[in-house]
Amino acid sequence: MPSHLALLSCLLVLLLSLDKFLLHYLKKRLFSGPRIPSGGTSKSRRPMAAAAKWSETAMLVIDMQKDFVDPAMRSPMLVAGGEAVVPAVAEAVAVARERGIFLVWVVREHDPSGRDVELFRRHHYSGGKGPTVKGLKGAELADGLVIKEGEYKLVKTRFSAFFATHLDSVLKTAGIKNLVIVGVQTPNCIRQTVFDAVALDYEKITVLIDATAAARPEIHLSNIRDMKNIGVETPTLDEWRR
Amino acid sequence: MPSHLALLSCLLVLLLSLDKFLLHYLKKRLFSGPRIPSGGTSKSRRPMAAAAKWSETAMLVIDMQKDFVDPAMRSPMLVAGGEAVVPAVAEAVAVARERGIFLVWVVREHDPSGRDVELFRRHHYSGGKGPTVKGLKGAELADGLVIKEGEYKLVKTRFSAFFATHLDSVLKTAGIKNLVIVGVQTPNCIRQTVFDAVALDYEKITVLIDATAAARPEIHLSNIRDMKNIGVETPTLDEWRR
Amino acid sequence: MPSHLALLSCLLVLLLSLDKFLLHYLKKRLFSGPRIPSGGTSKSRRPMAAAAKWSETAMLVIDMQKDFVDPAMRSPMLVAGGEAVVPAVAEAVAVARERGIFLVWVVREHDPSGRDVELFRRHHYSGGKGPTVKGLKGAELADGLVIKEGEYKLVKTRFSAFFATHLDSVLKTAGIKNLVIVGVQTPNCIRQTVFDAVALDYEKITVLIDATAAARPEIHLSNIRDMKNIGVETPTLDEWRR
Amino acid sequence: MPSHLALLSCLLVLLLSLDKFLLHYLKKRLFSGPRIPSGGTSKSRRPMAAAAKWSETAMLVIDMQKDFVDPAMRSPMLVAGGEAVVPAVAEAVAVARERGIFLVWVVREHDPSGRDVELFRRHHYSGGKGPTVKGLKGAELADGLVIKEGEYKLVKTRFSAFFATHLDSVLKTAGIKNLVIVGVQTPNCIRQTVFDAVALDYEKITVLIDATAAARPEIHLSNIRDMKNIGVETPTLDEWRR
Repeated sequence: MPSHLALLSCLLVLLLSLDKFLLHYLKKRLFSGPRIPSGGTSKSRRPMAAAAKWSETAMLVIDMQKDFVDPAMRSPMLVAGGEAVVPAVAEAVAVARERGIFLVWVVREHDPSGRDVELFRRHHYSGGKGPTVKGLKGAELADGLVIKEGEYKLVKTRFSAFFATHLDSVLKTAGIKNLVIVGVQTPNCIRQTVFDAVALDYEKITVLIDATAAARPEIHLSNIRDMKNIGVETPTLDEWRR
Repeated sequence: MPSHLALLSCLLVLLLSLDKFLLHYLKKRLFSGPRIPSGGTSKSRRPMAAAAKWSETAMLVIDMQKDFVDPAMRSPMLVAGGEAVVPAVAEAVAVARERGIFLVWVVREHDPSGRDVELFRRHHYSGGKGPTVKGLKGAELADGLVIKEGEYKLVKTRFSAFFATHLDSVLKTAGIKNLVIVGVQTPNCIRQTVFDAVALDYEKITVLIDATAAARPEIHLSNIRDMKNIGVETPTLDEWRR
Repeated sequence: MPSHLALLSCLLVLLLSLDKFLLHYLKKRLFSGPRIPSGGTSKSRRPMAAAAKWSETAMLVIDMQKDFVDPAMRSPMLVAGGEAVVPAVAEAVAVARERGIFLVWVVREHDPSGRDVELFRRHHYSGGKGPTVKGLKGAELADGLVIKEGEYKLVKTRFSAFFATHLDSVLKTAGIKNLVIVGVQTPNCIRQTVFDAVALDYEKITVLIDATAAARPEIHLSNIRDMKNIGVETPTLDEWRR
Repeated sequence: MPSHLALLSCLLVLLLSLDKFLLHYLKKRLFSGPRIPSGGTSKSRRPMAAAAKWSETAMLVIDMQKDFVDPAMRSPMLVAGGEAVVPAVAEAVAVARERGIFLVWVVREHDPSGRDVELFRRHHYSGGKGPTVKGLKGAELADGLVIKEGEYKLVKTRFSAFFATHLDSVLKTAGIKNLVIVGVQTPNCIRQTVFDAVALDYEKITVLIDATAAARPEIHLSNIRDMKNIGVETPTLDEWRR
């Protein structure tokens, strides 16, 4: 019995390893069933009227920092699937700029002491070093990503970009009603930001399914599923850019 | 190829349907691997010294209201797996009382207008009715659960018990450092409360894996996995009560 | 020597009182003058275009509960100047209803244990009793004030109506941009709510100077002065109702 | 008639000033008297047991930036009384360091666009310039003040150091229960930080009356009075250092 289970588990891992193919396949088959009646019952499901709406949209680029996505940093915080989505994130940013979407670069920057890091990660900080310490190389954006004039940098110290920050204030006062989310990683910073955005009544929240990543595909997918279940849209970059 | 995939998917669903057996099996085999080095690097992993520590522990009982767990209410908010865990929740509460653990009953209570409900659920409210409207039967605790003197009722309007509430203040000022979580449902109110508790630096956070529930087992399990990955403990009720 | 110092100090206070505050504020408008056009530099000072704008305005009625304004309750929390403004508050509420302004009744309701009360007031709670304990008479609205259908009750446990509550969410999502504040008491709950409203970027914040009160007139006036200094409008009820 | 009114108003203010506030406060202690034993009813008034307690104390140094306290910057945000307290603040910091008190340097840093500034001040930002814009000279600490290793810099965008920041988290998790506040300016950033600290249940909050400042003495004093009324201690630097 345990060995059957082991076999099945192996199959499961194999299945989930098919990755990008699966991302598309599962999204189109499994997740389009009757379970998610995305029929326009709620305000958040209405189609975007026109390009004019982009002025009410912000893109949050989350945690695209070297310590999270660049294996060369050898950071304990490296997200296994992170490096692979850097090009997609860069492309999403380019599309956002063309559309005049307000760009917010959300980054972690911690004190060298680690005193503003979550307890369960605090042991990584000592001797003035640790993941994404302010001023160190690991806190820089991944190669190829730059903050341009008119774009906003938002520093956070927890998973959610909204937790104990002034992000909601900056967005609401600028008239932002819709959010597009890219970056890493899906179960933590992406999902917590998304769930807080739902709690904060943003009307339309979109997670680009192939411009976000987690340590393993099944972690990514199960979190995408949960976000869809609370009304979040999850197109691919290509679907979104059309 | 697609049919193979379908078969594998079916096997996956079957696998996950083995439920309680799996709960134990997976917890002990899959999740005890090198991925989760629960070696005592962080403060939150140290063993509870003695019973004296219960005075620094609170149990959060989340959303155990008729509209969420009682099928007779025919609420659109019914959690499929909710009714099944009512006895386990009641038992967990009894253990907490024996140990002198501070009990917090977290409930949703909404205005009949629905104006304090998340946008994506607001269409359920009209004519003064809707899920867990304050004063209506659906907002009451499930049969068998009662708030006793000295226990605290905390009203919330979003997933997380900490979102826009004074819960953190009540707990921190009372010297609470550890949390035990029971109730529904795992991907939303349970998980968001747990992730916020991590963000708020509670030292030890415990989710009783069989006194919490989601609509489907695989949703429950994938969220338990994500919570374990950020240092949350996930024993069964029996393991916890020992 | 101490008496010389006292005399000099008094003269100093008198001298300093004869500045902008007294000369402009008291001479020109105490309960009668025209509204000071306070330097229209900011967005918040623009005139209300038309009655249509009332749909973007909410009135916050703060702490008008028996324990705060009814001397018969013999509450330690009684605000000396509170009872005197009950009629003005009732009138302001009537005007708000005529104009279709969204009414929010902000009240304190505390647990009998006092565990959700500020530390410096917690000694007032014992034996299941204390100021504005939920369910007790002292927590009720003052005689003559009632919450009508379509109006909202917001429970808080601290000075500011925005502190650890979902009020901002309810207001922002309803499209509210302007606030009118009445109730007690000026230095604590009124002012903290107003300063938080400024921090939360409400565009126009109006405190009705004679529908708010403090323990003593000079406390009321010095707080009105400070609120004016950050762009808050402070008309009388008569000026506002015109 | 208006002049009669003005005269009566002045007399009223003078009369009211001769109450508890003036008689007790100014006569007995202005810059010299013994600390007022303010009624010891609450937990927060108990005497500090020993030097050991300093490990549970943090000093918040608020907004001591060139644009707020250095007239040479010609900033519209200059606090008239700010420059005069720089030496007292520096001295308070020195005492804190001797005692091993955790130092938190709270500063405003704004985006050049002004999009994270309060609405009523936003007109000061254009062309990439404005008060305390991140990276510009005006955002630097006043001459003579420096952040040393082991001390913490906290960036805020609103009056209160706790508003939409992670300060409470950093302090509570470090075991801080008591706060000492210095800096500018009394009615806004000092007071809002203090009132939020009361709301957040810090046990003992101390404002050094001569290491804080406002635009005018009567503004400073009326705010000190209001803070005393909610249990805040307000010694001079000399009284506190004893």
